[in-house]
Amino acid sequence: MQPADPSGVTETAVFVHSLGLCESPNVGKGSRIWAFAHVLAGARLGEDCNVCDHVFIENDVVVGDRVTVKCGVQLWDGLRVGNDVFIGPNATFTNDRFPRSKQYPEQFAQTIVGHGASIGANATILPGVSIGQHAMVGAGAVVTRSVPPYAIVVGNPARIVGYAGDRPEPAGSQEAIAPPTKPGSIRTAIGNVTLHRMNHYKDVRGSLSVGEFQRDIPFEAKRYFLVYDVPSAETRGEHAHRECHQFLICVSGSCAVVADDGRSRQEFLLDAPSIGIHLPPMTWGIQYKYSSDAVLLVLASHLYSAADYVRDYTEFLTLIRASDAR
Amino acid sequence: MQPADPSGVTETAVFVHSLGLCESPNVGKGSRIWAFAHVLAGARLGEDCNVCDHVFIENDVVVGDRVTVKCGVQLWDGLRVGNDVFIGPNATFTNDRFPRSKQYPEQFAQTIVGHGASIGANATILPGVSIGQHAMVGAGAVVTRSVPPYAIVVGNPARIVGYAGDRPEPAGSQEAIAPPTKPGSIRTAIGNVTLHRMNHYKDVRGSLSVGEFQRDIPFEAKRYFLVYDVPSAETRGEHAHRECHQFLICVSGSCAVVADDGRSRQEFLLDAPSIGIHLPPMTWGIQYKYSSDAVLLVLASHLYSAADYVRDYTEFLTLIRASDAR
Amino acid sequence: MQPADPSGVTETAVFVHSLGLCESPNVGKGSRIWAFAHVLAGARLGEDCNVCDHVFIENDVVVGDRVTVKCGVQLWDGLRVGNDVFIGPNATFTNDRFPRSKQYPEQFAQTIVGHGASIGANATILPGVSIGQHAMVGAGAVVTRSVPPYAIVVGNPARIVGYAGDRPEPAGSQEAIAPPTKPGSIRTAIGNVTLHRMNHYKDVRGSLSVGEFQRDIPFEAKRYFLVYDVPSAETRGEHAHRECHQFLICVSGSCAVVADDGRSRQEFLLDAPSIGIHLPPMTWGIQYKYSSDAVLLVLASHLYSAADYVRDYTEFLTLIRASDAR
Amino acid sequence: MQPADPSGVTETAVFVHSLGLCESPNVGKGSRIWAFAHVLAGARLGEDCNVCDHVFIENDVVVGDRVTVKCGVQLWDGLRVGNDVFIGPNATFTNDRFPRSKQYPEQFAQTIVGHGASIGANATILPGVSIGQHAMVGAGAVVTRSVPPYAIVVGNPARIVGYAGDRPEPAGSQEAIAPPTKPGSIRTAIGNVTLHRMNHYKDVRGSLSVGEFQRDIPFEAKRYFLVYDVPSAETRGEHAHRECHQFLICVSGSCAVVADDGRSRQEFLLDAPSIGIHLPPMTWGIQYKYSSDAVLLVLASHLYSAADYVRDYTEFLTLIRASDAR
Amino acid sequence: MQPADPSGVTETAVFVHSLGLCESPNVGKGSRIWAFAHVLAGARLGEDCNVCDHVFIENDVVVGDRVTVKCGVQLWDGLRVGNDVFIGPNATFTNDRFPRSKQYPEQFAQTIVGHGASIGANATILPGVSIGQHAMVGAGAVVTRSVPPYAIVVGNPARIVGYAGDRPEPAGSQEAIAPPTKPGSIRTAIGNVTLHRMNHYKDVRGSLSVGEFQRDIPFEAKRYFLVYDVPSAETRGEHAHRECHQFLICVSGSCAVVADDGRSRQEFLLDAPSIGIHLPPMTWGIQYKYSSDAVLLVLASHLYSAADYVRDYTEFLTLIRASDAR
Amino acid sequence: MQPADPSGVTETAVFVHSLGLCESPNVGKGSRIWAFAHVLAGARLGEDCNVCDHVFIENDVVVGDRVTVKCGVQLWDGLRVGNDVFIGPNATFTNDRFPRSKQYPEQFAQTIVGHGASIGANATILPGVSIGQHAMVGAGAVVTRSVPPYAIVVGNPARIVGYAGDRPEPAGSQEAIAPPTKPGSIRTAIGNVTLHRMNHYKDVRGSLSVGEFQRDIPFEAKRYFLVYDVPSAETRGEHAHRECHQFLICVSGSCAVVADDGRSRQEFLLDAPSIGIHLPPMTWGIQYKYSSDAVLLVLASHLYSAADYVRDYTEFLTLIRASDAR
Repeated sequence: MQPADPSGVTETAVFVHSLGLCESPNVGKGSRIWAFAHVLAGARLGEDCNVCDHVFIENDVVVGDRVTVKCGVQLWDGLRVGNDVFIGPNATFTNDRFPRSKQYPEQFAQTIVGHGASIGANATILPGVSIGQHAMVGAGAVVTRSVPPYAIVVGNPARIVGYAGDRPEPAGSQEAIAPPTKPGSIRTAIGNVTLHRMNHYKDVRGSLSVGEFQRDIPFEAKRYFLVYDVPSAETRGEHAHRECHQFLICVSGSCAVVADDGRSRQEFLLDAPSIGIHLPPMTWGIQYKYSSDAVLLVLASHLYSAADYVRDYTEFLTLIRASDAR
Repeated sequence: MQPADPSGVTETAVFVHSLGLCESPNVGKGSRIWAFAHVLAGARLGEDCNVCDHVFIENDVVVGDRVTVKCGVQLWDGLRVGNDVFIGPNATFTNDRFPRSKQYPEQFAQTIVGHGASIGANATILPGVSIGQHAMVGAGAVVTRSVPPYAIVVGNPARIVGYAGDRPEPAGSQEAIAPPTKPGSIRTAIGNVTLHRMNHYKDVRGSLSVGEFQRDIPFEAKRYFLVYDVPSAETRGEHAHRECHQFLICVSGSCAVVADDGRSRQEFLLDAPSIGIHLPPMTWGIQYKYSSDAVLLVLASHLYSAADYVRDYTEFLTLIRASDAR
Repeated sequence: MQPADPSGVTETAVFVHSLGLCESPNVGKGSRIWAFAHVLAGARLGEDCNVCDHVFIENDVVVGDRVTVKCGVQLWDGLRVGNDVFIGPNATFTNDRFPRSKQYPEQFAQTIVGHGASIGANATILPGVSIGQHAMVGAGAVVTRSVPPYAIVVGNPARIVGYAGDRPEPAGSQEAIAPPTKPGSIRTAIGNVTLHRMNHYKDVRGSLSVGEFQRDIPFEAKRYFLVYDVPSAETRGEHAHRECHQFLICVSGSCAVVADDGRSRQEFLLDAPSIGIHLPPMTWGIQYKYSSDAVLLVLASHLYSAADYVRDYTEFLTLIRASDAR
Repeated sequence: MQPADPSGVTETAVFVHSLGLCESPNVGKGSRIWAFAHVLAGARLGEDCNVCDHVFIENDVVVGDRVTVKCGVQLWDGLRVGNDVFIGPNATFTNDRFPRSKQYPEQFAQTIVGHGASIGANATILPGVSIGQHAMVGAGAVVTRSVPPYAIVVGNPARIVGYAGDRPEPAGSQEAIAPPTKPGSIRTAIGNVTLHRMNHYKDVRGSLSVGEFQRDIPFEAKRYFLVYDVPSAETRGEHAHRECHQFLICVSGSCAVVADDGRSRQEFLLDAPSIGIHLPPMTWGIQYKYSSDAVLLVLASHLYSAADYVRDYTEFLTLIRASDAR
Repeated sequence: MQPADPSGVTETAVFVHSLGLCESPNVGKGSRIWAFAHVLAGARLGEDCNVCDHVFIENDVVVGDRVTVKCGVQLWDGLRVGNDVFIGPNATFTNDRFPRSKQYPEQFAQTIVGHGASIGANATILPGVSIGQHAMVGAGAVVTRSVPPYAIVVGNPARIVGYAGDRPEPAGSQEAIAPPTKPGSIRTAIGNVTLHRMNHYKDVRGSLSVGEFQRDIPFEAKRYFLVYDVPSAETRGEHAHRECHQFLICVSGSCAVVADDGRSRQEFLLDAPSIGIHLPPMTWGIQYKYSSDAVLLVLASHLYSAADYVRDYTEFLTLIRASDAR
Repeated sequence: MQPADPSGVTETAVFVHSLGLCESPNVGKGSRIWAFAHVLAGARLGEDCNVCDHVFIENDVVVGDRVTVKCGVQLWDGLRVGNDVFIGPNATFTNDRFPRSKQYPEQFAQTIVGHGASIGANATILPGVSIGQHAMVGAGAVVTRSVPPYAIVVGNPARIVGYAGDRPEPAGSQEAIAPPTKPGSIRTAIGNVTLHRMNHYKDVRGSLSVGEFQRDIPFEAKRYFLVYDVPSAETRGEHAHRECHQFLICVSGSCAVVADDGRSRQEFLLDAPSIGIHLPPMTWGIQYKYSSDAVLLVLASHLYSAADYVRDYTEFLTLIRASDAR
């Protein structure tokens, strides 16, 4: 998709096409500025970037290394783009929620694109959102809210439809590990996450699902909570716990759980009151795709403690690696 | 409603109207047989019964003391009627599920009416059912299944619509004790049964209800079970536990709980995931009026033990009284 | 259906079958008491009544003239039966809402059957209800609430399904007068009641129905009210106004209106926001068969005045006749 | 359920209890009239009937042989009862649809009870209906429409819930023959009726079910018809064809088919577009339990011919037996 | 977001970037044409416009003063743009509803953008629509129908989700004035618009809402109309009356009313039959967000008169100012 | 919409604007390359193309004759564009489904645009799809799946909403030929396609629609199939048969049929079980707009044969023309 490598550019120099215009001195080595592209003087770009035809980059813009900016894209004041980001053709950023001609907000809204993220062709990004690392914005999507790390969003307005797995494809599209059909538990590919089938019985008077805390729940439960009335487009979780174990049962309706141990991630479907999943500490957990009648029962090994939460994915990865190093 | 006391009858004699026909020698003192009534030779009736005009009583019938049988009723072979039962006018019993003329089943189905029960006027009782003690069958009801103690049933087919309270009126019609509006618990009029409001939070992303096991649940939970997919006409429970505590939360939809400590009974509505009810041991509990989407979460203090269940209400009362005597 | 006329009875005497038992001296001339029937001493019956086999009549019972009581019926203490009433075979009355053997209420509930009413075979009448004049209780119905004059009720529990017209058939089953299809009004067979089609327009943006008060509404509206959230089994109205005009439009859903000018009655269906009906003063009006989403808009010519309401149908007829006599 | 055999009655005589009253000379030998029962002079009863206590039988009544009339029943003018009929206690007949006291219809509605039928206890039969042979009216049912042969009806108003099989139990309650799970056909227990599974395929674009006329349909189809918008309480069919084959597929929703070869009957559920059933000529067929969205596709081997229909079950049996005799 | 002011441009001159191409002599003073932008010879632009990089402007285009055209936008033949319009980056106009290569319509569809309007980034505007003054087209919206003044539209296809208030934010997002909770009325911030709570009553038979015309409605009603069956995406109203008062009650379902007195505007929710709103003459009124079951009752002080309607918002403002000046 | 014809270009030469950049020697005569447009060396363009301002065309791109590429479009490696294609302004193509910066798929997905197709302004085309000949992609649509010939798609994601008729307007928007209201058939404007009304009857027991195979179906049916459970956005058919006749009846719900005889096309609505449509051989047929409960019954004159299908529309046209030539 990128233009052929022009013969005259070396790895240490910046290439500017004869019909391109680069006014900034702060462009990293190996980066290329193509025909009809225009980089203003204040912009800062990293190394090995590719700025295609008809791109426009304003002054208060910072772009990382190895970033691809396809044709027809503008990067406005206030934008911060991480390393290894892909921005598809005609993808459009904004920096004023209610723009009026010649009326400027006191401060332009800042939009942040995390490292490794991809913005699909012709997508529209509303002002002030963050695109999480490795997130993928679908072509033509209109992003009105921040996108979590690894999330895949599509549509207008954009909704999360999956999470990128180890490869760029959605985690949920890979071979799923089904819960056991008989009471018991199995290991998954994600850290110490286990999938459980609880005892269950059904007769004409209704159904019954049973669990014994000591035998069936892999920790002593000190707290429970119920999550319900969740709009179907909502995502909850997006955090890890430092010490707290969680055991999740979707007791009504259904929802999906994405578990991530910092190395890989997978999606699990909880669609029966007899299915449980154990998320041990230091598992990044996400719940989404709630059916309208979903009620999620969570058993937790610890009382609530704000300090136990890791809410930033980058911090989570740092902690995982520190733990590995030990 | 009963005929005026004829002058010639004493408390120790049986009165038979001059146009009545009593062929049985086994009728207790003080009982009265009125005009056009007919008691066959094998029937046995207790004391102080009132058998009104146009009643017919077959041979293999046993009736307790102080029973009222209103006009137009027939008591067929196989019927057993406890003490203090009221049978309304034209109420109709049966003893063959698929009757054909001149074809008799090997054994007629036996119908049992528990002591203190009332059968409404013109009700129809299908063969082989039991009417629990103090149960109340509504006028015109068609009873196709057994009726639990104290239950009130109406309609065709008859459905449980309530439970008789201390007085004959339904338990649910009395001034209900609402759950507390703020987190915490309150005592009810029934033994040590307590109603609880759990911590709960609501925002645009959905709702959350939280409980800590040690602080919010009045016992150590060793087991949970989930009851769901209950047809709306079903009743569950109808038993007490000897040692096991239970804590009930209706986590989706709604259901009603009747609690009975052997002295009085009351009905409670669980219609929010933030409401809990604690049923301590030796509480007779009933759950019914399940909404179609109801999911009931029960936390229990003991693992399952068949021996812990008291399933017979009479035995339950005996145990309660024995406990009181101690 | 009635037994053949026995040869020995004259119009001025009471006939009692040789196997019947009549203990009351207060039975009107021309009445007949048949085999195995039993009338207690305190009962009072009018003239030309027919008391069939196996009937039982208690003491505190008053029965009008020309009443038919078919086989297997009991009339309990507290019952008041008007003239020209028909009581079908095995129809069953009650006088205690929550009967328990040997426990009597302080006062038995009184049941009133208005003149000209008919109680269908094997119907069940719960205690304390009133059956309005000329009402018709369907065979097998279980009547749990009072029945308005002329209403036809069926089912368990009994629901109003129509109103008896000039002939015994339901008013709604006769040839209905449809509202005009073009804007304007037409007279109906009932007094000065008129049916109106309002101006209405429809396009892709929705529908519009319009009325001008002076031109389209036949009186000056001083008040409006909206009736909504009416349970589908409910009946409203059942009264006339002395001076107030009403104009009814069912602006959402549908409902039926029965109009009665004291001579005849007819049922009208309001199922479009463009249909109106004018009920002038001294029209007995009933609204029922509300759809679940029905909203009825009523324009009234007078402010609310309790004195303007005639709520008793007998009084209504009296006023109509007085007015006719003038 | 019937009274014990009195010692003094022989098989050739009519027994009348000393407190009973039989005014009719037309009662067959071996019949018994019990206490407080009353048979009017014009009634005609067959042999071996049992008329229990408190029964009343009018003049224009004809009753077959071996009929049981339990206590509290009245048989009104106009009633015709076949052989081997069972009438449960307090079952109530009627003969005037809109009864008013002292107002008689020109002719009473005639009710017919086919031979072998059973009327459940306390059932109510509205005027003018026919109860088909071997039909079974449930206890407490209110029958407002005619009941086909062998049909089982319950409720208020009564609805068909099944068909009596070889034994009195419902045909549908016996071990059902499921359709084959792979494409092909199997024989059933009913004559030459076969159940078919058609080829079918399913993918994300929808489902496909396919049949070849020559290979998959056991006759040459000359006509098709579609039955739809059937109210769920309706029954269709209730006839046989002399020469026409039919092949039924429920292409939307579901319905039940009862097939009867004159010897036995069975119920089949058509709940998928890939299930077919072949009803060869001289099969009595019934379709009922239509879901609200049911569409039944019928392929027929002959064009429509009124003469091909056998609509009377008795005639159907006669034809079957004549065919057998050949 | 706009490029930094180049040092060499004065307020009275037109600035054209050295890499830009302006072929038109009709560009107002103070306007700037940036790099890689191309203005054809026939185009006419007002003063102080900003035409950013990569913009293309055809010949038959008229642009007002102080218009901002962000990067990547094309203005096609037939487009008319008012003063103070903002056109976001990559926003895309069209002028042929069914384009085929080399086939041209007889006349290109004309698109009009009212003064003060804003077109969001990457929005798509279908041919022939009008964007009302001060309207706001959301980023990424696909506009398929004309947009009323001040309306805010988003989505694909674009729907009205609000109306811009005094500030650019939606009128509905500001602190709303709730209707009084007790019968009575309160003033709002908009002219003489008042919010009313009508008398209302609720019992088991349904609900009742009542109004007296003289006391509760602030004018004599000469006409009513009912609006119903409005598709949920529709907007109605969008006009003012010169003399006519209106009183609006949403008698079923709910809808929102925006009232504008020419100075400010606010949104009100009518979601109960007991809420009314009075829109006096010279109030610009809009109704939208109709629920699917909404029925809006409007009482009007005048008969219908086309001359009473002000349908053009600009004319409305002119009239308001003329009235103020008097 | 295209820029005015520059004076200096002749019909046999290629015009390149002085500010445009055309590096390819393979551009057909009469084509024009406008300002700020950039055609790479490997691209091949046909004759009479129009490449507007700010267009970018990569190397591995082949474009047919008479193609219009409006401003702001990029044509990426792998794209193949037929003759007479229109590509609207800012329409955006893609060639990598899950793009990551600097990670390239082994092969870029190839996108094909059939001849005569139009891509609406600002539409987004996902990688690897085919746009069928004469198809029309709505402005702002996001195309995620291949688009059949002549189909009109809009929305995000794009759905088929119609098929282009003889003129560019949708086939369904033209004056439709309604099926006959009485049993019988009528010819349509499409080849030998006929619309049929089958015999049908309706009563309270439901509805009946009947067809005789010889009289009502214009061929001998050898096979039937049922299509059901089709997601509402799905399109089926999109093929012709060489020899097989088909007769379609939508026996539940509704669907639309587009019939095309290679000369013109029209859309028909099947919304009643009594409507049939005959598609003779060599009719290109499409079924879509399935309601959620749609069941389509198809009768076919031949058994299944893969060789009988023509699945490529171009081949279909070729066959039609060959047939015409004979």
